[in-house]
Amino acid sequence: MIDFQKVIEHIRTEVTVIEDKGTVATYIPELAKVPIDKFGMALVDQYGKTHITGDGEERFSIQSISKVLSLAMAFAIKGEELWQRVDVEPSGDPFNDLSLLENENGIPRNPLINAGAIVICDVLMTELDNPREEILQYIREIANDPTINYNLDVARSEKATGFRNYAAANLIKSFGNLHNTVGEVLDLYFDLCAIEMSCRQLSHAFYPLMNLGKCLRGNQYLTIPQVKRMNAIMLTCGFYDEAGEFAFEIGLPGKSGVGGGIVALLPNEFCVATWSPGLNEKGNSRLGMIALEKLTTNTGLSIF
Amino acid sequence: MIDFQKVIEHIRTEVTVIEDKGTVATYIPELAKVPIDKFGMALVDQYGKTHITGDGEERFSIQSISKVLSLAMAFAIKGEELWQRVDVEPSGDPFNDLSLLENENGIPRNPLINAGAIVICDVLMTELDNPREEILQYIREIANDPTINYNLDVARSEKATGFRNYAAANLIKSFGNLHNTVGEVLDLYFDLCAIEMSCRQLSHAFYPLMNLGKCLRGNQYLTIPQVKRMNAIMLTCGFYDEAGEFAFEIGLPGKSGVGGGIVALLPNEFCVATWSPGLNEKGNSRLGMIALEKLTTNTGLSIF
Amino acid sequence: MIDFQKVIEHIRTEVTVIEDKGTVATYIPELAKVPIDKFGMALVDQYGKTHITGDGEERFSIQSISKVLSLAMAFAIKGEELWQRVDVEPSGDPFNDLSLLENENGIPRNPLINAGAIVICDVLMTELDNPREEILQYIREIANDPTINYNLDVARSEKATGFRNYAAANLIKSFGNLHNTVGEVLDLYFDLCAIEMSCRQLSHAFYPLMNLGKCLRGNQYLTIPQVKRMNAIMLTCGFYDEAGEFAFEIGLPGKSGVGGGIVALLPNEFCVATWSPGLNEKGNSRLGMIALEKLTTNTGLSIF
Amino acid sequence: MIDFQKVIEHIRTEVTVIEDKGTVATYIPELAKVPIDKFGMALVDQYGKTHITGDGEERFSIQSISKVLSLAMAFAIKGEELWQRVDVEPSGDPFNDLSLLENENGIPRNPLINAGAIVICDVLMTELDNPREEILQYIREIANDPTINYNLDVARSEKATGFRNYAAANLIKSFGNLHNTVGEVLDLYFDLCAIEMSCRQLSHAFYPLMNLGKCLRGNQYLTIPQVKRMNAIMLTCGFYDEAGEFAFEIGLPGKSGVGGGIVALLPNEFCVATWSPGLNEKGNSRLGMIALEKLTTNTGLSIF
Repeated sequence: MIDFQKVIEHIRTEVTVIEDKGTVATYIPELAKVPIDKFGMALVDQYGKTHITGDGEERFSIQSISKVLSLAMAFAIKGEELWQRVDVEPSGDPFNDLSLLENENGIPRNPLINAGAIVICDVLMTELDNPREEILQYIREIANDPTINYNLDVARSEKATGFRNYAAANLIKSFGNLHNTVGEVLDLYFDLCAIEMSCRQLSHAFYPLMNLGKCLRGNQYLTIPQVKRMNAIMLTCGFYDEAGEFAFEIGLPGKSGVGGGIVALLPNEFCVATWSPGLNEKGNSRLGMIALEKLTTNTGLSIF
Repeated sequence: MIDFQKVIEHIRTEVTVIEDKGTVATYIPELAKVPIDKFGMALVDQYGKTHITGDGEERFSIQSISKVLSLAMAFAIKGEELWQRVDVEPSGDPFNDLSLLENENGIPRNPLINAGAIVICDVLMTELDNPREEILQYIREIANDPTINYNLDVARSEKATGFRNYAAANLIKSFGNLHNTVGEVLDLYFDLCAIEMSCRQLSHAFYPLMNLGKCLRGNQYLTIPQVKRMNAIMLTCGFYDEAGEFAFEIGLPGKSGVGGGIVALLPNEFCVATWSPGLNEKGNSRLGMIALEKLTTNTGLSIF
Repeated sequence: MIDFQKVIEHIRTEVTVIEDKGTVATYIPELAKVPIDKFGMALVDQYGKTHITGDGEERFSIQSISKVLSLAMAFAIKGEELWQRVDVEPSGDPFNDLSLLENENGIPRNPLINAGAIVICDVLMTELDNPREEILQYIREIANDPTINYNLDVARSEKATGFRNYAAANLIKSFGNLHNTVGEVLDLYFDLCAIEMSCRQLSHAFYPLMNLGKCLRGNQYLTIPQVKRMNAIMLTCGFYDEAGEFAFEIGLPGKSGVGGGIVALLPNEFCVATWSPGLNEKGNSRLGMIALEKLTTNTGLSIF
Repeated sequence: MIDFQKVIEHIRTEVTVIEDKGTVATYIPELAKVPIDKFGMALVDQYGKTHITGDGEERFSIQSISKVLSLAMAFAIKGEELWQRVDVEPSGDPFNDLSLLENENGIPRNPLINAGAIVICDVLMTELDNPREEILQYIREIANDPTINYNLDVARSEKATGFRNYAAANLIKSFGNLHNTVGEVLDLYFDLCAIEMSCRQLSHAFYPLMNLGKCLRGNQYLTIPQVKRMNAIMLTCGFYDEAGEFAFEIGLPGKSGVGGGIVALLPNEFCVATWSPGLNEKGNSRLGMIALEKLTTNTGLSIF
């Protein structure tokens, strides 16, 4: 049996000495303040035991990782019908997202690119009475931690500069694939990006996706086929135009955020979260990618 | 333990009664002649035992499935250096392949789209003395069957109408990413598409990709990291713009061809090939997709 | 000497009997109400004499024709410096405007497509104290008619549905090529589209472009080189993706609007405005295009 | 009356002292040999008098200027029917020509981009018994000079490196818009590009386009409406993505070639050819553009 605690501590020792830690995202002033030398990792194994190392308890802005959580909630509510609003194909080129939206009549390529996550927010707004509160409540429950919260400064900072997301949302709206107003939907979207969680909390929040839909407390959040689909989407679409590279190097379904977090999982084996704020040129955490590559190489555990 | 023979026979019973069998590809006259009601399936399990049902011994044109075999050979020869010539990202949109080539300076998005497979042929032409013979020999050896061969009528038929491939090859050449002449490279490319194999032969030829690089006779064709990469590429890029859908519905690395064949595999568990010539609107075998979906659903075996 | 009154009356007789009058634009409810059988024409000759026929005195929504008037004002204020904010090349494909914006870093292809006119509005907002009032005043002065005004119902109607323009403006903003807020700039943009003028008023407002920069009262609005440039832009960019067709069939610089108006001119000879609300499939007034084609054919007057 | 001889000599004096003469095209080795300080100009006025200055009698590779001559011949033969094979809209972006071809099902945007000229060659191949000889004969007759000829070294040089044109032709063929073989059509295409003419010969060859269809000897080559259309096409499409700039700066229909030649004309006034082998960054002759700008500015003669 693998001693995961030893494995992740060893990885931390190896990656924290790497000099090139990437670059902290600067387009969101709040995120630019995070010290570059932070590194945390948390891994929950199949027996529900959590292993932590480094800054694994410190909270950071989960950013795009929230797209998986809102998707899970929308998928549980709407079922297969959800795929009429958003497709499940890799986007190929991140820089083409607006032209893809045009070519495909406002149906985003997948729910993990910005355009797709905006549509998911729109779905949740229509379905929920108090979307902002209920989504947060949903995440708190899966992660079993009532202290998880939005960082309103970060959200405000993104709203003031997220013109590209406003462009995408308006284009989707022009095709009739947004049922609420652009302003409301993007308020929710930016709030979700601004949720703060630690590696420990993230590894727990994603636990159902590695555990046939059940959270650590045994509540069922998704059906088994739904879990399979979520994982397929993460594997093919979770890393922007580095999706192929990630599947290739690491071989796990996962999702990254520009706050420096990455969550990944091996079904029935483990769910892992890493955090290091420096990004590589593709916008994924540089040390996080290396740590995960070491994890699958050292343990021989990957889906391939 | 799963009785795979029973499983695939049951699947055959279920899918062969489906009325909508899709449409046989007509743009290659030779392929258009194949009877629509053919259905074959072959599965090799982790113990090397082969299970066959229906027309699993009948040969058909493997078409794009050959792209995986030529890639495996080129990867084994060139190693990581190969990725300087071709990328490993999903292409997103099949109809954009020429504009993607332009935007990305003649580096195809991945080796399983036509443009990428053309570059792989170019690599093999440069590396091998008699590429046409040596590649065939390589496939015969992995599959342990010296009767596997090209169908020259099919190759000729495709050469006479494959203007889009000539366009792609010339565009790649204009960027300097083709070292041999366009005519020579495409001759090889079309020959490889025109190889004929049965489901049994295909399941054996792909066996190393599910068996840590070793063929049924125990010869090592690829290193373990190389196998992992091949599978990652198949999962993310193996089904044109249905790659996401395939990962989503079936959850296995694989590759389809317009001849109606599909090969898929679950590492360390099984390697399976199906054949049914009718295609769905995305160009993948309609009954083959359904059969594989049933296989993973009925057995609970998938990577997710 | 040509008897223009006779010429345009003859044209009116010929075109008003054409059964296929095109289709009134329906995406702006206010415009959809206009009777399809309206037809007006006004021509000012080089001696300043105005010839009118049909509904040439009736006001209609000038829509995109306003783009030329705001451009003229911005060009007079900023001079050549203006072309750092917007290019002067034909756009090729109207459906690509968003992807062109992306490829060209937020610099619109020309000032007569929506994206370009939005940038021109931004320039005017920065330069003027009360842009809305001063632009209207400018148009009233050139046309020598203080009754010209905005139709606020039309403007409101467009603001509520113009998501595509909001998408374009946000995309431009994301590249830093919009200095005021998206909301303010689009308010002005939609107001300008909603100006109402008659054929007579339009022919007078465009008179400086055919008269070396001088209006009917002799005031100089543009320098001669500026006039030449304005006409070159109208000829190459004035008719969306029918620009080539218009130059080809009619051979005059001009501009159309979805309200059914068209203005065109032959330098030093005449300036003409037509109005018929039914549009052809490219979005230009069907009878207006035919009327102008007859005008240049019958008189032999064109730039070619 | 303007003394054109004096005008062009004065222009030559002014432009030949400009230090930045642009860069000679190097992708065709034969063209790279031409001395950068060549400058010629020839102008035929409405009375048929030819004015020459500098190297106006020296022959150079006319390259894309030949596209206008082959278009004129095809248009005279096929009439309006020709536009079913090629459109007449500006292409917007030269770098998009292949993706435009894809979006528009193999119908090139206009006959003056490479893709369009390839289709025109295909039309002529189908219509003529000996296209190569008959087209040359046609040009010799209009220009009234039997010594005009192909430069076979240049043609060979281009055939060996013109992969992008082979890509375009194959793509057009894949859509069924090429009736002869790609190889034959491109042989003719490259031969036409490799015709050598002097400024004098070019100004005579284009004389019918400024003289209502009649050449200097009084033979009618095109109808008056056809001439009008040819000029409209040249104005909107004659200068790649500098078409708007050319209309804007110079205001004449015309066509340039990478050999450094430009021909332009003002209907009923003059037809002018310039030659200077250094190109600007858009691929048009740098000094030629300046010379023509001076010509229209100094004489006040332009279409606007």
